[in-house]
Amino acid sequence: MRPVYYEDGALKLIDQTLLPTEEVIRSYTDYRKIGEAIVTMVVRGAPAIGVTAGYAVYFAALEFKKEPIATFRQKMKEACDYLRGTRPTAVNLFWAIDRMSTVIEKAEPQDPETITAQLKEEADAICAEDIAMCRAMGKNGAALIHHGDTILTHCNAGALATADYGTALGVIRAAMEAEKNISVYADETRPLLQGARLTAYELHKDGIPVTLITDNMAGWMMKQGKINCVVVGADRITRNGDVANKIGTYSVSILAKEHHIPFYVAAPTSTIDFDMLSGDDIVIEERPSDEIKWIKGQQIAPDGIRFENPAFDVTPHQNVTAIITEKGVVYPPYFRSIPKLRQDQ
Amino acid sequence: MRPVYYEDGALKLIDQTLLPTEEVIRSYTDYRKIGEAIVTMVVRGAPAIGVTAGYAVYFAALEFKKEPIATFRQKMKEACDYLRGTRPTAVNLFWAIDRMSTVIEKAEPQDPETITAQLKEEADAICAEDIAMCRAMGKNGAALIHHGDTILTHCNAGALATADYGTALGVIRAAMEAEKNISVYADETRPLLQGARLTAYELHKDGIPVTLITDNMAGWMMKQGKINCVVVGADRITRNGDVANKIGTYSVSILAKEHHIPFYVAAPTSTIDFDMLSGDDIVIEERPSDEIKWIKGQQIAPDGIRFENPAFDVTPHQNVTAIITEKGVVYPPYFRSIPKLRQDQ
Repeated sequence: MRPVYYEDGALKLIDQTLLPTEEVIRSYTDYRKIGEAIVTMVVRGAPAIGVTAGYAVYFAALEFKKEPIATFRQKMKEACDYLRGTRPTAVNLFWAIDRMSTVIEKAEPQDPETITAQLKEEADAICAEDIAMCRAMGKNGAALIHHGDTILTHCNAGALATADYGTALGVIRAAMEAEKNISVYADETRPLLQGARLTAYELHKDGIPVTLITDNMAGWMMKQGKINCVVVGADRITRNGDVANKIGTYSVSILAKEHHIPFYVAAPTSTIDFDMLSGDDIVIEERPSDEIKWIKGQQIAPDGIRFENPAFDVTPHQNVTAIITEKGVVYPPYFRSIPKLRQDQ
Repeated sequence: MRPVYYEDGALKLIDQTLLPTEEVIRSYTDYRKIGEAIVTMVVRGAPAIGVTAGYAVYFAALEFKKEPIATFRQKMKEACDYLRGTRPTAVNLFWAIDRMSTVIEKAEPQDPETITAQLKEEADAICAEDIAMCRAMGKNGAALIHHGDTILTHCNAGALATADYGTALGVIRAAMEAEKNISVYADETRPLLQGARLTAYELHKDGIPVTLITDNMAGWMMKQGKINCVVVGADRITRNGDVANKIGTYSVSILAKEHHIPFYVAAPTSTIDFDMLSGDDIVIEERPSDEIKWIKGQQIAPDGIRFENPAFDVTPHQNVTAIITEKGVVYPPYFRSIPKLRQDQ
């Protein structure tokens, strides 16, 4: 399942706003429209956004490549600035655009046609590297999954959040490919229901048995012995092993600890913020209250009340059994094991 | 806020299926229509259903009181049997109908007019006793709430679930009346959203500050020190202090324990099953998966996947700081303190 890919001269995106009830693949050749697709969350998930932005820069170059080099460079700068503004918090977006900008600066000879060809290669490389990273992570993580395990996951750290295969769901796919006879419980993940809409959809599509539960059922499933381990993704990991991830991950980590169930985090090393000492320093994005008050156009709560809607929470490193990366699995004490991942870079 | 009351010769019900976006009071004089209102959850909450059923039996008697006594008794038996079938698991439903049936049997003289008058008195008594019990529980529980506390509650154990005032929300109302300057966090309570639709609605209506969160945010709010105690209702309490309540209550109890926050259960002694030794023996109702898959007519999950939808879970007595009843507050060890409540009956 590839939510973003290049085919027949166009960028293809699965419209994730319509999943799971409609499967629509949209086709783009205008970088402005690709930017709009990022804003409106046709594509979401930090790695998938990065890959999308890479191709968006390439399509901008295709549009401007008949211009003189000075004009071309100016137009490309404007296009990159526009794309940077689409999702202000997705780190991979800036990282991908920076990589593309570096190609523009470094290309030899400095002519638009050459630069455009090299940008296509770089966009393809970002995409291919993302998939390779997910595959490596999956292989490393699958070693932690036992035959017959039932795995709980939260939110969507799946193929739909990356170029393919996924991070947490990559581990699950790799365990499936290793014929471990696994099954999955997916938390629906209110308010935006990524678990119900995306995780359940992509696992079912891949033939992996998936049971959907509401977020408040996870503890009760654990109590009944129905869950053997938890695997989630991460939005940011600090140097001490604290993990920022979708709201609700922190609660799941406490429930796992209470029931003596391993709690694994799967994330590429690019997610690790080696310069941030602990999760206490992570600023949590507060999102609009209408995400809670309305579901698919239906009002479910009264007017006039107060809401809180933090998009993420921070799971302390004490609750994390292991962190699965493309370079290997690291264990506590993380203040020792995590810095070693940087040395390997 | 009274979800069920007798006025001007009719039974009035707030249509809870339309809350919080529409406030509609429906008027009933036909016991069959009242039965339908229970089935379709126009009225819900075990105590409120009991009160409703009491009046339904009275309206049946009004309809049949011109019949000869033998016919009257036969018709009343059929009406009671019909009403018993409306919600098979609500204990208060059977309890209220049994009380009304006893009036029919014991009335002197045995004539339909006299019996009908006595049934009205009994229905009024069931209603009045429920309110008195909630008020007593509220007063007992309010003593546990400190000035300035922020209280987390789950589901709706409110006025809307009783004849008035509520159980868990009765404690909150009593603390408010005692000018303790409290505020409330309400879990939205998926899948049926009783927290969002009903608890937030009735607290806001009463001027009690309420913040709505999704179920998966409770742990993160506790981590940030925003919650001082938890108060929930109960569907059944066993002799050892185990508490069956709305799904998600068990997880909240673990989160409270992890954060050293008191976890209180407010329920009348009629909720205590003195003959059941522990929560292990409670059968948990599994409800239709469409309650998760659809929200207000909108499909949020793919076809073809598996769902689990337990309506309740069981919180072990070890996680319960105290149980608030109309007869007083009881503490661990519950196997000693709970049987004493029975002796007082």
